[in-house]
Amino acid sequence: MPKEVKSLVNDGEKEEDLLHGKLKIIQKIEGYRFSVDPLLLTNFVQINEGESVIDLGTGSAVMPLILSERSKAKKIVGLEIQKEMIDMAGRSIKLNRLNKKIEIVECDIRKVKDKYATETFDVVISNPPYIPVKNGKINPQEEKAIARHEIMANLEDVVLAAKHLLIPNGNLFLVYPANRAVDLLQTLRTNGLEPKQIKFVHSNDNSAAKLTLVKAVKNGNPELKVLKPLYIYTLEGDYTDEASAILENGKDAL
Amino acid sequence: MPKEVKSLVNDGEKEEDLLHGKLKIIQKIEGYRFSVDPLLLTNFVQINEGESVIDLGTGSAVMPLILSERSKAKKIVGLEIQKEMIDMAGRSIKLNRLNKKIEIVECDIRKVKDKYATETFDVVISNPPYIPVKNGKINPQEEKAIARHEIMANLEDVVLAAKHLLIPNGNLFLVYPANRAVDLLQTLRTNGLEPKQIKFVHSNDNSAAKLTLVKAVKNGNPELKVLKPLYIYTLEGDYTDEASAILENGKDAL
Repeated sequence: MPKEVKSLVNDGEKEEDLLHGKLKIIQKIEGYRFSVDPLLLTNFVQINEGESVIDLGTGSAVMPLILSERSKAKKIVGLEIQKEMIDMAGRSIKLNRLNKKIEIVECDIRKVKDKYATETFDVVISNPPYIPVKNGKINPQEEKAIARHEIMANLEDVVLAAKHLLIPNGNLFLVYPANRAVDLLQTLRTNGLEPKQIKFVHSNDNSAAKLTLVKAVKNGNPELKVLKPLYIYTLEGDYTDEASAILENGKDAL
Repeated sequence: MPKEVKSLVNDGEKEEDLLHGKLKIIQKIEGYRFSVDPLLLTNFVQINEGESVIDLGTGSAVMPLILSERSKAKKIVGLEIQKEMIDMAGRSIKLNRLNKKIEIVECDIRKVKDKYATETFDVVISNPPYIPVKNGKINPQEEKAIARHEIMANLEDVVLAAKHLLIPNGNLFLVYPANRAVDLLQTLRTNGLEPKQIKFVHSNDNSAAKLTLVKAVKNGNPELKVLKPLYIYTLEGDYTDEASAILENGKDAL
């Protein structure tokens, strides 16, 4: 590997495989690392050829990277507020020579109106923080805390940003905890983003759902399609075939 | 069978088996007949010993009849607005000698406040009409139309009635079309009946959900449990074991 590329990876970071080595992603060795959520969400999203996509709170840019390969999006923006993550994500984009397709933009989700005019994107995606700040311990590593806790943004901030950014009939795709599905559906509808498809993710066939994947359409008509659920494990504890195919895409970097 | 009992069944009606013949139900031969919905809902409800239960829009009283056998409820009220159904349901109660346990009450769901004080029941159940009046053809048989279309009551009427009737922390159990799950969850939460458990019913493992079974708790904390779904058919077209066990209870009368 040429020395110039090698130098994109800083101390305490590691270059890891995505999509079976088609792409590389730089992640911290310790600290915030992506979970299964973005792998599940990128598998769930529907993006048509030539569409513009924005990921609200992109972190290491794992979703823009995967979608640059797995969709025909024209342009993918990763919005992020944490300077260190922006820097690292930017180097991952360079590493994959995807600078023309993916742009990492420094912006607070609550301030997208200052950065973008309304109706600028065809598709918005996000894996929003979901742990209320009052609950549980705040992660001492600030990056993890911001990614998981509602410190810099909560679900409503993400939905309001999506409402501003999306074209009429544009699509919003979110992953969110299943035990907060009522908050999710109500926040979407209240803000004119009508939930149209929902898919629950269960650990196995005997367990309550852990995650909700949802597609909402700006100003869509009320009519929800509850898709067949996804099970991650068989009752024997192996990955199901469906989960395996999805999680394989990032397994080296999980 | 003694002549006196036989005479409870009118012309155009038939006495049919419920719960493998443990109970009898009188239904019209033509006209409104119960569907799988009440069988699914009575399987889903949780009723503790000694609780009082009210079924809003009880029709032929199929749910009170099943629950008189399958629960330890102290008292079950079936509320109904249609005189002919009240009469027929009353005769089914007599036929089973359940007059002490089940009471059929003539009342408009929108007027329960005139009939009952607030906080009168531990549990409310309902299979509300769900077809908006503006959509589709109205069933020419008025009983079918009232049971299925939002003519005499809609979801919100049922939820408002439940809000009035339930004790604090009392439970409401509903079955409703899955494609209207957002309406369902939002209407419940907006009226202080927090959705706590939800179970989707799919035709088979490859299809989107048809029905939603939901448990809401009056003034409950927001925290939803998305239970494993129920599949009615195998991919080969047979009943699944789980569905078979539930639907067997009313198969002779379906």
